Amino acid sequence: MSKQLKGNAVVGQSGGPTGVINQSLVGVIEEVCEQQCINELLGAVHGVRGIIAGDLVNLKLLSRRDLDDIARTPSAALGSTRDKPDEQYCHRIFEIFRDKNIRYFFYIGGNDSANTAHIINRLAQQAGYELKIFHIPKTIDNDLLVTDHCPGYGTAATFVAHAVIGDDLDNRALGGIKIDVVMGRHAGFLAASARLARRRPDDGPHLIYVPERSVSMENFVKDVAEAYQRRRRCLVVVSEGIIDTDGAAWAEKIQRDQELDEHGNVQLSGAGALAVFLTAKVKEQLPEVRLRADTFGYLQRSFPGLISPVDAYEARYCGRMAVYYAADAYSSGSVCFQRFGKGDRYRVETFVTTLASVATGTKTLPDEYINAAGNDINPDFYDYASPLVAALPEVGYIKR
Amino acid sequence: MSKQLKGNAVVGQSGGPTGVINQSLVGVIEEVCEQQCINELLGAVHGVRGIIAGDLVNLKLLSRRDLDDIARTPSAALGSTRDKPDEQYCHRIFEIFRDKNIRYFFYIGGNDSANTAHIINRLAQQAGYELKIFHIPKTIDNDLLVTDHCPGYGTAATFVAHAVIGDDLDNRALGGIKIDVVMGRHAGFLAASARLARRRPDDGPHLIYVPERSVSMENFVKDVAEAYQRRRRCLVVVSEGIIDTDGAAWAEKIQRDQELDEHGNVQLSGAGALAVFLTAKVKEQLPEVRLRADTFGYLQRSFPGLISPVDAYEARYCGRMAVYYAADAYSSGSVCFQRFGKGDRYRVETFVTTLASVATGTKTLPDEYINAAGNDINPDFYDYASPLVAALPEVGYIKR
Repeated sequence: MSKQLKGNAVVGQSGGPTGVINQSLVGVIEEVCEQQCINELLGAVHGVRGIIAGDLVNLKLLSRRDLDDIARTPSAALGSTRDKPDEQYCHRIFEIFRDKNIRYFFYIGGNDSANTAHIINRLAQQAGYELKIFHIPKTIDNDLLVTDHCPGYGTAATFVAHAVIGDDLDNRALGGIKIDVVMGRHAGFLAASARLARRRPDDGPHLIYVPERSVSMENFVKDVAEAYQRRRRCLVVVSEGIIDTDGAAWAEKIQRDQELDEHGNVQLSGAGALAVFLTAKVKEQLPEVRLRADTFGYLQRSFPGLISPVDAYEARYCGRMAVYYAADAYSSGSVCFQRFGKGDRYRVETFVTTLASVATGTKTLPDEYINAAGNDINPDFYDYASPLVAALPEVGYIKR
Repeated sequence: MSKQLKGNAVVGQSGGPTGVINQSLVGVIEEVCEQQCINELLGAVHGVRGIIAGDLVNLKLLSRRDLDDIARTPSAALGSTRDKPDEQYCHRIFEIFRDKNIRYFFYIGGNDSANTAHIINRLAQQAGYELKIFHIPKTIDNDLLVTDHCPGYGTAATFVAHAVIGDDLDNRALGGIKIDVVMGRHAGFLAASARLARRRPDDGPHLIYVPERSVSMENFVKDVAEAYQRRRRCLVVVSEGIIDTDGAAWAEKIQRDQELDEHGNVQLSGAGALAVFLTAKVKEQLPEVRLRADTFGYLQRSFPGLISPVDAYEARYCGRMAVYYAADAYSSGSVCFQRFGKGDRYRVETFVTTLASVATGTKTLPDEYINAAGNDINPDFYDYASPLVAALPEVGYIKR
C-alpha cells in the first residue's frame, strides 16, 4: 500500500431517504474508526447544505449503542437534502474542504449525489488538492448504473410486496378492481417487486405496468376489464412513472399545473392524482364495478419494522468498503455490487466504478423482465429480486 | 348446564377485512370441534351472500396446519360482503337455516353484522325456532358499543403507528409539511393511534385531528403554519372523517359527486381527495414550503407481517368464547371485552351483551383523550391503546 493520505473526512446523506441509508452511514463511521489515516469524521447535516452552512457533527463521539440504534433506523439520521449543486456550489464546498483539511468525502445518495461528488473531485484535481471522494449508492428506485442493485431497494421492495400481498387478500375478500400506484419515476424495479406477491396462479397483482413500456388509456382500461371479467376481481399495480404512447408520463399529463420539486421534477407521489385519474378512466368503462385505488406514497421509503436483512447488511458493507477503498489506493469512485450465485447461494462482492459512470444516466428495468404485452413482469424477475427482500409472509386459504 | 341444542352451525365474515378476523374464524372452528352439540360447521362464502346462494364450505375438514395458516393471514378467508340485509333478506336466511337444521350462527363483523344477527334472531323467536346467534366483533375503527375495544383495531393501530414513525423520520430528514390521512369515518381511534408514534417531545405527529371535534379550514391552516414555523417541519395526522364547524364531513363536502358505496356512505378512502384538498389549502397560506400528503388507504386493514400479538390472541379468544357461550346457556349476544390492569398487568375477560346493544349505534373516541384545542391526543390515550398494539420500533438519532 502506498503512503496514506492523512486528514479529516466528511460524510453526508442526500436525496429521498431509504430504510437502510443509516446502515451505510454507520458502515462509514465504523470503518473510519479502523483507519488511522482519517482524523476527524464530520457528519454534514442535511448533506451539502450542512457543509456550506458549517453545520457539521463529530461522528466519532457516537457510542456503540448509538451506532446500533442509528443503523436500524430508517431515513437519513444526518438529515438529507434535495439540493443539486452546480459548479459554483461545488466550488464553495471544495473551498471549505480545503480550509478544514478535509481529505476524504463520502456521499451517500443517488446519481445526483454521484454527480456532486464528480464535480468536487474535478475541482480538487484542477487545484492539485489531494482529496479522496467516494459515492455510496442509495435509492429505492434501484436505478443506478453499473451496480447490480442499490442499497435501499430491497427494503422498499419488501414493503411493496407485503402491501400487495395484503391488498390482494383484501381484494379477494370483497371483489372489484383495485389499483395501487407504486413509486418509480423512470424505472420499474419497485413496481416490478409487486410480482413477488404472486405465489399462486390466481394471486394478484394481475397486471403490472412499468415506465419502460408505454400504455394507452384505451389498452389499460381494456386489460383491466378483461382481467376483472376473468375473476370478478382484479389487482393492478402501476408505477407512478407510466408513460403514454407519445412518450409523455401520464402523471405529468394530468398534473401540469402541480408544483415542481427542487430538481424541476413534477411531484408524482403523494397527492394521488394518477390513482384518481386511472380510477375515473376504468369507471367510465365499468361503472357498476367496485373500484378502489391507493397511492403507496412515502411509506415505501421509510417504513420501520420491515427492513430486509440482506439489504441492511449490504448497505452497511457498502459504507465500510467506500472507506476501505479510499484508505487503500483508490482516489475516487462509486461502490458497486457484483452478484454471484442464485437463491441460497446468492452473495455479492463490491468493486469500484468511476463517479462519472454513475453520475448522469439511470438504469431501467431490463426488457427481459417485462412480458410481451407490456402489462406484467416475467417470472425470471423473481431470481433477480427475491434474494434482496425479506422473507414474505405465507398465507392460508380456504378452498371455496 | 341445561340440555344442549343439537344441530348444525354457520359462520360468516362481514364488512371491511382486518388483520385478525381470521383468528376469530379459527377460534370458532376450534371451539366448535370441542362442542358435541354442533354437528356440521358451514362457512358462508362472502357472508350472508353465501348463505343465500348456498355457497357454503365444510370447515371441519380443515387440517391443523390449514387452521394455523389461515389464522395468521389478514383479510377474510371466507370472503366478505358489504350486504346489509333488510327484514326480507334476513327472512330468506332464516328459511335456509330452518331447512338445513342450522341451530347456531356466528357472524364476525361490525355493527351492521350485529344488526343482521339481531333481525334473524327476532325472526327465529317469532317462528318459535330455536336458534343461537352470536356476533363476534371486528373493526379497525374500534367503534363498537359496550366492548372495551374491538379485535382488529390493535393491528391496524400497529400499522398506523409504524407508518407515522417512519414518516416522521422522513419529514425530519427533508423538512416541510406532511399530511397523513388515516381511516375512521366517525371515530378517531385509528387516527389517535398515531399518538403512539410520538415518544420524544419533538417527534411527530405534531397535530392530530379526529372526527369527534370540528375544525374550520382557517384554524387547520393556522395550526399547521404555527407548528411548521416552530420546527421548520410538521407532521399532521388527519382522520378521513374530520368535520367542518357546521357538522358536515370535509371529505363529503369536497366529494359530493363521488360514488356511493353499497351502504350509501361516501367513499372517503382510497382516492385521496381529502389529502389533495388539505394540501391545497395549506399551500395557499405557505406557498414556499415543501408540502406532501399521503392517504394510508386500504393498507391499514390487511397489511401482513405486522400483526399485533395481543390483537391476534384476543380475536381468537373472542371467536372461541362465542361458541362457548352458545353451547352454554346463552341464546344470543355479542362477545365483549372487559379490561383489567394497566401496562404489563393488562388482561381482558369476555362477557355477553345483547345483539341490540351493539346493532345500531357506534362509539366515538372519549372526550378525555382529545386535547382542549381539538388538534391533538392526550397522553392518557397511551394507557388505553398501547397494550393493544405490537411493540413499536425504537429509533436512533444523531444530536445535531
